[in-house]
Formats: sequence, structure tokens, C-alpha cells
Amino acid sequence: MFESAELGQEINKTDYEKEVPELREALLDVQHDLRESGKFQVIILIGGVDGAGKSETVKILNEWMDPRFIETNAMGAATEEELAHPPMWRFWRALPPRGKIGIFFGSWYTEPIVNMVYGTIKSRDLDRAMEGVIRFERMFLDEGALILKFWLHLSKDVQKKRLEKLEQNPETRWRVTETEWTHFKLYDKFRKISERALMHTSTPDAPWIIVEGTDPRYRYLTIGKEILSALRRRLDGGEQSAVPKPAPALPPVDEKFQLKSLDFSQNMTKKEYDKELEKYQRKLNLLVRSRKFRKISAILVFEGSDAAGKGGAVRRVTGALDPRSYRIIPIAAPTEEEKLHPYLWRFWRNIPRNGNFTIFDRSWYGRLLVERVEGFCSPADWMRAYGEINDFEEQLARSGGVVIKFWLSITKDEQLKRFREREVTGFKRFKITEEDWRNRKRWNKYELAIGEMIDRTSTDTAPWTVVEANNKYYARIKILKEICERIEAAM
Amino acid sequence: MFESAELGQEINKTDYEKEVPELREALLDVQHDLRESGKFQVIILIGGVDGAGKSETVKILNEWMDPRFIETNAMGAATEEELAHPPMWRFWRALPPRGKIGIFFGSWYTEPIVNMVYGTIKSRDLDRAMEGVIRFERMFLDEGALILKFWLHLSKDVQKKRLEKLEQNPETRWRVTETEWTHFKLYDKFRKISERALMHTSTPDAPWIIVEGTDPRYRYLTIGKEILSALRRRLDGGEQSAVPKPAPALPPVDEKFQLKSLDFSQNMTKKEYDKELEKYQRKLNLLVRSRKFRKISAILVFEGSDAAGKGGAVRRVTGALDPRSYRIIPIAAPTEEEKLHPYLWRFWRNIPRNGNFTIFDRSWYGRLLVERVEGFCSPADWMRAYGEINDFEEQLARSGGVVIKFWLSITKDEQLKRFREREVTGFKRFKITEEDWRNRKRWNKYELAIGEMIDRTSTDTAPWTVVEANNKYYARIKILKEICERIEAAM
Repeated sequence: MFESAELGQEINKTDYEKEVPELREALLDVQHDLRESGKFQVIILIGGVDGAGKSETVKILNEWMDPRFIETNAMGAATEEELAHPPMWRFWRALPPRGKIGIFFGSWYTEPIVNMVYGTIKSRDLDRAMEGVIRFERMFLDEGALILKFWLHLSKDVQKKRLEKLEQNPETRWRVTETEWTHFKLYDKFRKISERALMHTSTPDAPWIIVEGTDPRYRYLTIGKEILSALRRRLDGGEQSAVPKPAPALPPVDEKFQLKSLDFSQNMTKKEYDKELEKYQRKLNLLVRSRKFRKISAILVFEGSDAAGKGGAVRRVTGALDPRSYRIIPIAAPTEEEKLHPYLWRFWRNIPRNGNFTIFDRSWYGRLLVERVEGFCSPADWMRAYGEINDFEEQLARSGGVVIKFWLSITKDEQLKRFREREVTGFKRFKITEEDWRNRKRWNKYELAIGEMIDRTSTDTAPWTVVEANNKYYARIKILKEICERIEAAM
Repeated sequence: MFESAELGQEINKTDYEKEVPELREALLDVQHDLRESGKFQVIILIGGVDGAGKSETVKILNEWMDPRFIETNAMGAATEEELAHPPMWRFWRALPPRGKIGIFFGSWYTEPIVNMVYGTIKSRDLDRAMEGVIRFERMFLDEGALILKFWLHLSKDVQKKRLEKLEQNPETRWRVTETEWTHFKLYDKFRKISERALMHTSTPDAPWIIVEGTDPRYRYLTIGKEILSALRRRLDGGEQSAVPKPAPALPPVDEKFQLKSLDFSQNMTKKEYDKELEKYQRKLNLLVRSRKFRKISAILVFEGSDAAGKGGAVRRVTGALDPRSYRIIPIAAPTEEEKLHPYLWRFWRNIPRNGNFTIFDRSWYGRLLVERVEGFCSPADWMRAYGEINDFEEQLARSGGVVIKFWLSITKDEQLKRFREREVTGFKRFKITEEDWRNRKRWNKYELAIGEMIDRTSTDTAPWTVVEANNKYYARIKILKEICERIEAAM
């Protein structure tokens, strides 16, 4: 894979100086068009061998293009804050909005590769990590992002000479530390392992571009031209996202969803409720205060029909918690800024650090509910969301997040009753809007969407709990009990 | 000041239970109206003596109101990330947007008071800190925020009993640590010092409300009712921001601004420029790489007439820097989310941590330029901006930020020449828009605004550097040189 990047490719100074001014103008222009279009973001990864010129390359790109619309992210060792979140969190935070370019120096590839070189993970772990990376990048590609992955390569011989030269110059000496020489001693291993990682993740839509790092002029021109042509192709519409759209899934023949077989006959008296409420709030409070909870976190999702009692249920949960330990995130239509990012972005921003709760009042499942039913996104978009969401939740779970999802279900009759009650109540906050009635008319459409959603996104790590909510007391206790059990099991 | 909060005020259970349901309904309603209006944010501080029930009070407020629209912020010891920024940074990050309530548990008062109790600062430092706090709160009041400051008080006797009781109950024992007992031993001192701080900062628009903490029912009802009535008053328009609007300042009689006396005759040849550019870029690069720079940060502000060459100048500065060490923040019209916060919010979000640069391409001075001239804000708003901005920059400077501000000035003729050149150039990014011509027509209005701005916001800690930019070479070198000098002086 690296052979063609060991040929000693170079460009002489005359040719270089002839080509650069034109390339710069073209890059500035294409960057301007990207900004104007605002349609997609560009993610540029610069990886490779130590001493192959990663840092200089990033500098040159910032000089050639308009640095005001480039965000350069150096992803070094994770900070304390970052370690208290899933590994991908810091990359999500650093992603550029549509219309901008984000350059990543060190990326989601760095840690798995380095860990395997140092022997702290096995090759099957690397493979698994790379599969995760493919799915991660795939999501961005599907959201329209342009991903350009450059790997700067040096032969062993050249790398050695390069490091020695950097060391001799007082101005660059600081860049050669122990780490660089330790890496060098592991050159062969590093080469083999990165080859494996790169081969695995060189997908048709986001292939690795291997660039020989020996000659700076060759390196800069190659990368500059690649960026220019990829951007130009995409902007001129010659290349849409090349990902084939999934064929629409057939609706299940029998429509036998879990929801249809719910039993709403539960009863619970106020007296029973008060007793149980105290019991489970107390239990939850104790669980969360235990030392073990500091190493995990809880992500609660509340979805359900209008008037199913989400707000009341949330209040009974938070009633058991220290207000310092939770955040409630109410989800409405995305803001301007949020629209400039992939749809999962605003949820990633709000996941809790260890020892804390985030309670989502509506959630990423909007994609499979309102966005699907109202046609706010294309069928291809919501169809891929099944996999993306499972992936997202798995990442949360893998880093200690307990993902607890509730669907609060009421019957159509019960909803009507509650709507009517609300219409006569004195509290403005319970006023029924036009939209509520409109949603109600789409009951069947929503039922189909909900059924599919629950079937397809109820996973081992993040199962749905369907809550029969005609009786509010029963519903609240079921929810509290489930939270206690899930957290207990995780600790 | 605390005497009336030592009377043993209490409310009996019957009265409490009669009053609470109605209060809760009213609170939920007023919160709903706040959300609907979206006009202002509510900042509630809960401070006071240990054991006076701060934590329980916050919990009750979250139970009584809709916790989805409350953000509770526990401000404990600063994290590593927070320590690398000015002290107020973490409060800015936690401020609620308009339409929401933010509860602060521990606030900007905590550290100064505690530090003085422990003797690490003197009383004049406390006074100075409190003056800063008044200005800080004043700005939010001027932006329309409602600030409610509650101080929960306990007499010494009651505090002792309370701490002992908490310790005896296994469920609350965890809350009484060494710190609480150490604080108790310092009760008298703490009382005296907080009294001083509170008296100083009990302003007509944001007075402290002292609440006796002995009886929980009394405490909850008092605070709940205060919140309700303050919110209701404001929403019903009975009480606008009570701050008197400043009288319009008279324009200076002679209009003798620094700008008018600029000399644009500087010359610099390409050859001189190349030599100087190399010299100062090299110098800047070395300065920034030095160990001493890790303890400070640089905040660069680029303002100037259209076509004055800001972009080109920025590129010459970043050319000297490691791309990992700077961020460029281009400032355009505020986004939806930004509009929900005071105008300085988006700048606070982007200030650098120590060891880094933030380069603002246009900045908070938009308030005194485009917003003033185009009438996007009221005269009262831009007039108070002078003081707010000086305050902001002083805070940056005090925590090691080197604030370097450039005004790039060109003559009206030179601008015309550049506009004409741009109209014929092939690069789309340089196309002249309608807006550019419109701004040009307001040259005189802008000149007045610019002149006043420079006169009034050129401070010792953050002086303006006016750059005669008809000759681009000269301008760029002047800028680089100034940056080197300012950073050198700071180290």
C-alpha cells in the first residue's frame, strides 16, 4: 500500500513556483464557493508517519486558503473533561459546520493505531475500532460531508534522516521528543498496523490518499490539488454523495407491533402510588449517591404521544435527584446553528459526563417520528437513522452510559379525553394547539412509525420500555422502577 | 442586615399546605409565559450560610416549576479548563438564554467572600471584586435580565444544631464535611464579611433578599412567592428594567479625532517588506514558542473600513503561528441562539485558553460601529457598551490576556480604487456587494462612530493601534511589529 510513496517523488522549484500561485487562487475561490453554498462541511484528516511533514502541511493549507474559514483541530491526549465522556465526543465537538473546512491533526484513527502498536489492544480490537470508524464516517458522508483523508508516508530510511535533521536545527529541535524516537523504533510495526487500518477504512467515498512526505513541494502540491479537485467536483455537482440510497424497506406485512398488543387495564390508587413513589424515589436517590455511580452516567429518553404525561413523569424522576446532577434537554425544532451539523450533533453536545444524568424530553428519535411522518427528511435519511442511532447508543453504553428509553403510550380515547380536559383548564401551559389536533389526525401514520422505531432500535444495550400510560400513577412508578433496575444492574 | 432573619420566622403546616398548590400553579403559569415571551432570562442566585437549606431550596424550586426550562448550575471549585480562562468565563458559559431560568448555586460572590474569610485577599480586594460584580450584573440588567439574589441565613446557634442534625442522619451525613465545620468556626467572620459584600451589592435593580433558613416551609414559600411576584411584575410590564437610560452624549464639538490627523504617505517597497516580514514573523514565532507564553494568551481584534486589507493582514500573522495555537473567529450578524444572550456572550465563548491566540475578524466593536450607525440597537445600548467593553477587556487582561486591537484605516479615495479593482478581478470572493457601496455612502457617519470608539475604548491595558493601511506592506509590518512588542512586554 505504501510502495508508491517510497519512490522519492519530487517536484523541482521552478515547476512548483509556477504552479502555486494559480493553485492558491483556485483554492481561495473554491473555498469562497463552499461558504456561499453552505451545503456541506469538509473534513480533512492529516495523518501519517512522524516527521513526514504533517504540521508543515497544515500550516501551508492555512496559508494558501482563507484561514478564517478553516478550523484546525489538534487532537492530542484527551483532557480530564474529555475522558469523562465517550471517546468520540471530542471529535463531535470539533466538527466544522456546513460551509467550513475542519482540519484534523490526529484523528479517530490515532488512538486505535497507537494502542495496537504499543500492544495495549489486540488486532481484533483494532478491526472492531475500524468498523466503528467506517460507520462514523459513513454517517457524515450520508449527511453530505466531504471527507478527505491524507496519510503522509516516509520510508524508514528517510524518516530517520528527517528526525535527525529536525534535531540538529535549534528551531525545530523541540518537535523531536522521546515519543518520536520510540515511534521510530517501532517503525515496522507501525507501518504494518497502519496499513491494516488504512486498507480497512479506505472506502469508495472516503478513500485514503497516501502521499510521499519526503519532498515538501511534492507533498504540498499533491494535497493542495487533491483538495481543490475534490471540492470543485462536489460543488459543480459532478459528484453527489456517491453512497447508494437504500431501497425503501417494505412495511411489515402483518403490522403486528408491540404497541398494538398493549394492555391498558392497569390500575393504581393514589394510596398505592404514594407508597411506591416514596419507595422508588428513595431507592433512586441512594443509588445515584453511591460511589459506583460516579463511573457511569444515565441518559434518559422520554418519548410518547401528546398528552401522555411525559412532563409529569420527568418531574417524578428529577424529584429523586440532586439538581446539580442532572440536565433536562427539551428538544424542539433544530436551530439555525444545529442545522449546520449532522442531526445527531445537538444530542452529542448534551450527553452527560460520568456521575450525571441527562434527561431528553423528546430526542434523536424525532428523526423516526415527526421528521419521517411530516416528510421533513427523505426516506433515505430516516432509514439510515436506525443504524446511526443504534451506533450512537452503543457508543454511549460502551463508555458507561446507561441508556434508558421510555415510550409513553395512551389510547386514542384517553388522548381525546385529556385534550378535552385541557381545553377547559385554566392553565395556559396546557392549552391545546392546532398542531396537537393535526398530529392526532395522523394517529395511524404515527403508529406505524412508532412500531417500526421500537422494533428496530430496541437493542440489548438500549432497550425501549413501553409504558402503558392511561393510568398516570402506574406509568410513573413503572418508569422509576425501570430506572432503578437499569442503574442497579449497571453498577 | 441579618437581624430580621434571626427572628425564628416560620409557617405552620396547615397554612403551608393550603398555600402551596396555588403557588405551584401560578409558578408554572408564569414560567410558561416567560417561555412564550422569550424576552428575558431569569438569573436566580442561591447563596448563604452552610446548612441553611440551599440545596433543598433548589430542589423544591425544580419540583414546583417545570424543570425542563430551568438550568441548575452548581459552581464548585474551578476545573482545569476553567482555570485556564478568566474567572467570569465559566459563569458566562452557564448563563441561561432568554425565556429560561438559570439557578446558580454558588456564584460570582462565593470566591471573593470565601477568599477573604480565609484571609487570602484583603478587604480592598473584596470591595474591588464587588464593584466588578455590580458592573457585571448591571450589564445583564441592561440587557433585560431579571436577577433575583437570595441569601439564606441562619443564626450561629441554629447553624450548629443544623449541622449536627445533618450529621446524625445517615442519609444526609455525606453533606457535612470538614469544610462545613471549618466554615462554622469562622461563622462570625463569615457573617461580617458577607454582610459587607451584600450591602455593597444590594442595588435597586438587583437587591439581595435575605431569607431566614431555619424553617423550611417559611424558606420555600418566601422564595417561591418572591420569584412569582418578580416574574409576574416584569411580564405584565408593570416593571420594565428600572435602570435609567443614559442621556445621549453630546458629540465632541471639534470632531478632532485621531483618525483625522493620520498621515497616509508611508511607503514600503516589496523588497523592504519581504525582509521585514521575515524578521517579524520569525520573531513572533519564537516569542510564542517560549515557555512564558503558556501562561498568557493573545486576543487580537481586527477592525477597519471595507477593503482595508484585514484578511491579508490576518494571514501574515497566522503565517507565523502554529495552526494548533490559534482560532480565527469571523464575526457576522448574530445567530438565533446568540440573540438569546447578551451581546458579549458570543465573544466570551471564544476567548482563548492560556498559551493560545484568538483572532477576531471584526468583533464586539460591531456594537459601536454597524449596530450604532445602522440603528440595530438603541442609543442607550451602544452608549453603555463603552463601559461594558472596557470592563470585558480589563477582565481578559487581568487574567493574562494580551488584548491587541487594530483599526485599519484607508482614505476614501483608496477605498474607491480598491472597490473598482475588485469589480474587474476574476476572483468571486472579492466581488463588491451592494452593501459595500451602501456603507461607503455613510462614510461620515462611520467616521464619527469610529472616532468616538477609538477615543473611548483605548485604555492602558487595551489600547487601539490605528494602522494607516493605504500601503498594504507598511500596514502588515506595523501590525506584526505591534503584536511582537505587546507580547514581549507581557512576558
